[in-house]
Amino acid sequence: MAFVPLNPGTLLAPTPVVLVSTARAGERPNLITLAWTGIVCSKPPMVSISVRQERYSYGLLTQTGEFVINLVSEDMVPWADLCGVKSGRDVDKFALCGFDAETAGQMKLAPAIRQSPAYLGCRVERTIPLGSHTMFVAEVVSTGVAEKLMDESGKVRFDRAKLAAYSHGMYMSLHEPQGFFGFSVARPEVLARRSAETRKNPPDQR
Amino acid sequence: MAFVPLNPGTLLAPTPVVLVSTARAGERPNLITLAWTGIVCSKPPMVSISVRQERYSYGLLTQTGEFVINLVSEDMVPWADLCGVKSGRDVDKFALCGFDAETAGQMKLAPAIRQSPAYLGCRVERTIPLGSHTMFVAEVVSTGVAEKLMDESGKVRFDRAKLAAYSHGMYMSLHEPQGFFGFSVARPEVLARRSAETRKNPPDQR
Repeated sequence: MAFVPLNPGTLLAPTPVVLVSTARAGERPNLITLAWTGIVCSKPPMVSISVRQERYSYGLLTQTGEFVINLVSEDMVPWADLCGVKSGRDVDKFALCGFDAETAGQMKLAPAIRQSPAYLGCRVERTIPLGSHTMFVAEVVSTGVAEKLMDESGKVRFDRAKLAAYSHGMYMSLHEPQGFFGFSVARPEVLARRSAETRKNPPDQR
Repeated sequence: MAFVPLNPGTLLAPTPVVLVSTARAGERPNLITLAWTGIVCSKPPMVSISVRQERYSYGLLTQTGEFVINLVSEDMVPWADLCGVKSGRDVDKFALCGFDAETAGQMKLAPAIRQSPAYLGCRVERTIPLGSHTMFVAEVVSTGVAEKLMDESGKVRFDRAKLAAYSHGMYMSLHEPQGFFGFSVARPEVLARRSAETRKNPPDQR
């Protein structure tokens, strides 16, 4: 027996860890840290976030129908953890973290975090209660990347973002690239050109 | 202006990268590599996977209503990439990768990959067409972890799994832990005990 059975659970890993901003007219914007999020469609670009009904952000999400996903870099991890355990009912999380609110494209009120390496402005399309969490399925209607991620030729260098991942209760840094999408079937000249992005040997395809 | 606007897109990162197995009676089981997957609920434990309708796995998913998520370790990355670009219509992916099919708990036919560090057996609850992709929302009905991840005291050591992540077209390894969930508000004695799991200093909470 190769596997030891465990109780059914949320064993999927690693997951993203992101800071999600929401805002309601006349109130300060709020933040919630989420790892229960993912990409669900490419065209149109869509994501999901799952939030407990008792969280302060839940009301803001259902009432405004919009949110901003802010990607989290390694240096933001302590603040992301803090925003995951504090409530916006009690504290101003932007102030607590020293974050600045930046206007996000296509959003009425939900701001981006200026200190984040990239953001996705999202409009809720479906709200699906599932149990402990409600899933919000949303279309990505805007994105922005920090100027410091752009290289001289105007290419986005996501490797400069130093994003954090979440894996079984731990915030992890991403280390060296193991390969680029399609490297297992890439031609030798492509592999040679992109060798810095590939640690693994392409498999022997027998 | 801190952000450079890009076209709306699936910028969320890092995401998981997993091998999803399906099987239909009288046929060999199939595999598909997915990064468009995530946790969507804790109780009951639920996940989503998103699959293009033209993929061979799409028919198996809609007809069988079950699948197994196999987590991908660094050494499986070349095979995961290969399973992402080949079709089960043309090749036997288990054979191609040298993977063994292992019975997965609560699944009628969908197997786990014996070489994977952990698996989640999933039963489809909702099928939601979104555009290029259809989202399958599923309950996790079984899990198993490789025996080699268990330590002497029976604790699961997920850090031994050496999981891969996917980030903007690159397969990445996870590096050192930056902190454990809740470390930003942990008591000094907890921080001292878990110092090996925490690279970051807890934030100054002002």
